[in-house]
Amino acid sequence: MSRVFNFSAGPSVLPESVLKTAASEMLEYGSSGQSVMEMSHRSKEYQAIFDQTEADLREVLEIPAEFSVLFLQGGASSQFAMVPLNLASESGKADYVTTGAWSKKALSEAKRYINAREVASSADKTFSYIPTLTSDMFDEEADYVHITLNNTIYGTHFANLPDTNGVPIVADASSCILSEKIDWSRFACVYAGAQKNMAPAGVTVVIVRKALLGKAMEVTPTMFNYEIHDKDGSMFNTPPCYTIYMLGLVLKWVKENGGIDGIAALDQKKADLLYNYLDSSALFSATVAGKDRSIMNVPFVTGDEEKDAAFIKFAKDNGLVNLKGHRSVGGMRASIYNAMPIEGVEKLVEVMRTFESK
Amino acid sequence: MSRVFNFSAGPSVLPESVLKTAASEMLEYGSSGQSVMEMSHRSKEYQAIFDQTEADLREVLEIPAEFSVLFLQGGASSQFAMVPLNLASESGKADYVTTGAWSKKALSEAKRYINAREVASSADKTFSYIPTLTSDMFDEEADYVHITLNNTIYGTHFANLPDTNGVPIVADASSCILSEKIDWSRFACVYAGAQKNMAPAGVTVVIVRKALLGKAMEVTPTMFNYEIHDKDGSMFNTPPCYTIYMLGLVLKWVKENGGIDGIAALDQKKADLLYNYLDSSALFSATVAGKDRSIMNVPFVTGDEEKDAAFIKFAKDNGLVNLKGHRSVGGMRASIYNAMPIEGVEKLVEVMRTFESK
Repeated sequence: MSRVFNFSAGPSVLPESVLKTAASEMLEYGSSGQSVMEMSHRSKEYQAIFDQTEADLREVLEIPAEFSVLFLQGGASSQFAMVPLNLASESGKADYVTTGAWSKKALSEAKRYINAREVASSADKTFSYIPTLTSDMFDEEADYVHITLNNTIYGTHFANLPDTNGVPIVADASSCILSEKIDWSRFACVYAGAQKNMAPAGVTVVIVRKALLGKAMEVTPTMFNYEIHDKDGSMFNTPPCYTIYMLGLVLKWVKENGGIDGIAALDQKKADLLYNYLDSSALFSATVAGKDRSIMNVPFVTGDEEKDAAFIKFAKDNGLVNLKGHRSVGGMRASIYNAMPIEGVEKLVEVMRTFESK
Repeated sequence: MSRVFNFSAGPSVLPESVLKTAASEMLEYGSSGQSVMEMSHRSKEYQAIFDQTEADLREVLEIPAEFSVLFLQGGASSQFAMVPLNLASESGKADYVTTGAWSKKALSEAKRYINAREVASSADKTFSYIPTLTSDMFDEEADYVHITLNNTIYGTHFANLPDTNGVPIVADASSCILSEKIDWSRFACVYAGAQKNMAPAGVTVVIVRKALLGKAMEVTPTMFNYEIHDKDGSMFNTPPCYTIYMLGLVLKWVKENGGIDGIAALDQKKADLLYNYLDSSALFSATVAGKDRSIMNVPFVTGDEEKDAAFIKFAKDNGLVNLKGHRSVGGMRASIYNAMPIEGVEKLVEVMRTFESK
């Protein structure tokens, strides 16, 4: 066996120790006589796995008791509808900040149900920065302000939460959850697809303020109603049991590695290594500047498409895969999520140096 | 390791050989250097797995080209809304046959969006039979007739499709898919959650007639629109990649075991073994009679709650688990899906005989 360093933007690398545990428990979990895949979601054995996963997520992210933690399906894309359907019933208004392809989709879906307004956008420069936001830009009557905390495609990140004129924030944290602390006092809801920092694709974590539940719009499908899932502890129907178990294994790994503090420090170290090289290189350059840089997704270019293609091939030949940038940005992108070992980033920088020197 | 015989109604037993393959490929699939869990859904490696899974499903179920195969999330419960939202735009009317808790839920969700009518129900006898249905009971103007092909909780099954007055059928086949042939000429749509005969929980297969797409109601969330998923080959957003891979492994196993013909013959043999014993036993009796009997879910009782409880404990001590019946029926239920080996049913009958003789 020879594992590559996988810089995929998602689904993406998982901790090797987690995969080893999953493999070793595949035919029998503990002394249950069954695979986790085969367990009834109503069984004591599975409920224990589920409860421990929620408890670990609450501990790691310091989620206050006034928030409900839901394990749903359908990805962040389903949340683009569920957020306005569930959380905009007071004023029917919400403010959206457009910082990439995913926040554009969130806005356009919200417009189908509520009065959703684009407050600011960085579309003018291919979403290569986070717009400057001041409190007077936000409607104090809006039910929420929607932001995409980390933009997977463009490699930008909100270094600070905007002053939203007292309006609570709803954030898509798909590509940065578990890499930073969250100031829950500012949020109505944080949601994230699992397939970057949490687990394989197939579970969506929604952390929502309980006081906001029970006000879904009339047209909301039952399965899109947060309150329904909250009441049944995410077991209104069969949850994606095995993917939740995988999330549980990843959370144990996060705890073993110093929790969010430990992980965030390592993430910063990995990102610094790569950005420092990019800022000093004569061949490669980062497409995002300053404080807006993501420590999860690092897009970079040579400025020459042929050289980009040659580098991607050279990297692949050296065991570094999925470095091609998104088609809307071009060039390269290194997604260096929590589970990417520092050795992977060191190897990447080494391979970039070698390529540059040729 | 000591694996039990698991009679869970779902999530449920998977073929041991499938679990072994999954374990052996967990850290590296082929020579990809990655786990399937880590693969980008846009990668060539993953697309090959995905395409093979769809091809095998089409082959095994003989799905005609005029049907689209979608791999979605959210379980059959999401289909309870998606079916009326997508398939009832012509007349806004649909006829529902109520044969259990799940078909009741399907009807009640449909009523929120369309004129959904209950044509017949077997609620009067705890859903222990399939109602007699004649063509004059159905509205020929309805867009579809909804049935639950196999009723997991009550152990009933449609031995024959009803004459629906020319109206196409939409069927929830969650607990019998891959155990019988499907006469596609009669159907508008067949859907099924994976966690009984197909895969671990987390993927929902929707097989829908292409000509019916593109007519979703205005309020339909984008992620609930069949046409969106059809256009993007079930990759409008990240699909539940690993669960689809597991389905692929199960489909290979089905093919190795004679396809639907081979599997159905074995299923019938297992069911006959159990029903024959039940019909001859002085202690145990089946709750469903005649042609309505499911070959997947077999509920049975002693008529004495204390004896039921004693038997369930006795069976568990003998390595037979999850035999407790659903709370609405009581007694016992043996779910003997495709992956339950005949040895499991033989052992169950043996343990029942021993218990009866005591």
